[in-house]
Amino acid sequence: MPEAVLQRAAAEMLDWQGSGMGVMEMSHRGKEFGAICAQAEADLRQLLAVPEDFHVLFMQGGGLGENAIVPMNLSRGGQVDFVVTGSWSVKSHKEAQRYCQAKVIASNADSKHTRMPDPSTWELSADASYVHICSNETIHGVEFQTLPDLAALGSQAPLVIDFSSHVASRSVDWRRVGLAFGGAQKNLGPAGLTLVIVRDDLLGHALDICPSAFNYRTVADNQSMYNTPPTWAIYVAGLTFQWLLQQSEGALTGVAAMEQRNQAKARLLYDFIDASPFYENKVSPDCRSRMNVPFFLVDETRNDDFLSGARDRGLLQLKGHKSVGGMRASIYNAMPLEGVQALVDYMREFERSHA
Amino acid sequence: MPEAVLQRAAAEMLDWQGSGMGVMEMSHRGKEFGAICAQAEADLRQLLAVPEDFHVLFMQGGGLGENAIVPMNLSRGGQVDFVVTGSWSVKSHKEAQRYCQAKVIASNADSKHTRMPDPSTWELSADASYVHICSNETIHGVEFQTLPDLAALGSQAPLVIDFSSHVASRSVDWRRVGLAFGGAQKNLGPAGLTLVIVRDDLLGHALDICPSAFNYRTVADNQSMYNTPPTWAIYVAGLTFQWLLQQSEGALTGVAAMEQRNQAKARLLYDFIDASPFYENKVSPDCRSRMNVPFFLVDETRNDDFLSGARDRGLLQLKGHKSVGGMRASIYNAMPLEGVQALVDYMREFERSHA
Repeated sequence: MPEAVLQRAAAEMLDWQGSGMGVMEMSHRGKEFGAICAQAEADLRQLLAVPEDFHVLFMQGGGLGENAIVPMNLSRGGQVDFVVTGSWSVKSHKEAQRYCQAKVIASNADSKHTRMPDPSTWELSADASYVHICSNETIHGVEFQTLPDLAALGSQAPLVIDFSSHVASRSVDWRRVGLAFGGAQKNLGPAGLTLVIVRDDLLGHALDICPSAFNYRTVADNQSMYNTPPTWAIYVAGLTFQWLLQQSEGALTGVAAMEQRNQAKARLLYDFIDASPFYENKVSPDCRSRMNVPFFLVDETRNDDFLSGARDRGLLQLKGHKSVGGMRASIYNAMPLEGVQALVDYMREFERSHA
Repeated sequence: MPEAVLQRAAAEMLDWQGSGMGVMEMSHRGKEFGAICAQAEADLRQLLAVPEDFHVLFMQGGGLGENAIVPMNLSRGGQVDFVVTGSWSVKSHKEAQRYCQAKVIASNADSKHTRMPDPSTWELSADASYVHICSNETIHGVEFQTLPDLAALGSQAPLVIDFSSHVASRSVDWRRVGLAFGGAQKNLGPAGLTLVIVRDDLLGHALDICPSAFNYRTVADNQSMYNTPPTWAIYVAGLTFQWLLQQSEGALTGVAAMEQRNQAKARLLYDFIDASPFYENKVSPDCRSRMNVPFFLVDETRNDDFLSGARDRGLLQLKGHKSVGGMRASIYNAMPLEGVQALVDYMREFERSHA
């Protein structure tokens, strides 16, 4: 997380802006927290250019919770189309089967999740309540560089995107999206806050078995305060929104600046890997994730040496997910270019001394 | 919240115990957060004397979420008995009807929620999956001073208690309880953490429609980390558990000390109200809440004057809930005896000058 955000949160811990109380002590119905929550929503709307006809909901339960909450709210018990592109969309598809006919209309399993299935090949259902994609898969390192245009493919179904792992790393084309959801912990703040951004016409169709606390209509009608909201997490996410709005790269600000920065970070790392005979990334270049870069040493007997040397340099959490193996560099918004440069420097040195 | 807890959270914001990272920056799967979470559970078990055959689950969704999550996990779609004693149990009963035959077997509605229905009069079902009570009702200010002994009443059903608003204010007789749930925000920490303490034999019977993220068996099998847990809230709750363990009153420590302190606070306020012809509490003395004390000015035309004078003295949030009217003093664990004394002093002075 940005150090400036942490410092401000620490400074305001016992007294938020002269109110005499810390954020964790506030009633969620008081005017102080109301101001914090309203500002967070306004800043997020600006940051992601959220259109007026979308609701911003601050919820609990995480991305895994939303795997159930989305179909309970949107499926109407009917057919839902799933595009399966890695571990997260596999989980989403499996969970949705509790609530609807969840059909896999495209998959990249035959490529071991290293290519995104071309939208023109998707077998879109005529009557799907929605189409689900995970727009960035953290474990396999594949990302939709461009969101699919379902309308252009002849579908009227709204697109649901799980953008947990790359929210605020790039802009969102809301004309192509009906609902976006994500846990805040990757790019936006602390764990315990789930963000749902949903178009107004999709509310009001929840199944009877949908818990009131997770009914989007109820949450929206109560400004995310039907349930006591995760007040601290909303506050810290709000500080992060303000930090993001203040970022700039040349004439670009906010998410546009982050997008340029993230592209530069990803290019630096992928270019180095591609140019090296010592390392390998197996993902097709047109769908490589800017957030999560899995890579392999061609000689995997050196894995432990590589990780050990990395740790000595303070380069942490580089071990790949157990289902994939190898290495993985997660280069979220808060990771500066210098951090990626340090990784590349280490990889180059390790190659020289071990090739 | 205790100032010592807030100060420590602020001091550790950027560097938890020399780890080089703050708690909000930790992976929930790392050894640092693993240690925080394990310590929090151990401290909570000690604090509430939780038996070995109960699981402690750190969840999300709040008490209102649990109104659905409990019946999804425990009802088996069958009959569930509800004791309706105020606003919270009314909500719980209403929500449960989505998942089971939720039967009201006792109610205090005829007394306008000022008396607890005597357990000997409850019409317990022969085949209920469980019996639900709200052990402290914040709005109406009624509390079960003693938990009902269902076995002694001839029932084999486990007792479910919603103890959101008085957890850790007194001891729990776990021999009488199958499951206890509560949001942490009243007595245990920040909003965004839900505590579930459940006996092992009650797991494994969830309905198919229960979301995986809220399936107690799944949560328990993954040490509350199936889903990314609300890491910061668990950390702060853990600091609060340690603070509570350190409290003492004479030879008593921990919750026993808090219970004695809470009894003294409640006695001070109720005794003053009962002795005054100017103020009134309508709740039967044997079920008065130690946490939430609703009271009325006999001459209600003076309500605004009373609240205005209270505010001038820094006595905040005394307005009663809109469904009940009058005043309400919430005297949770973190409120010291001196705070209640200040309220009583003000009430006495207001009475003298307005009687």
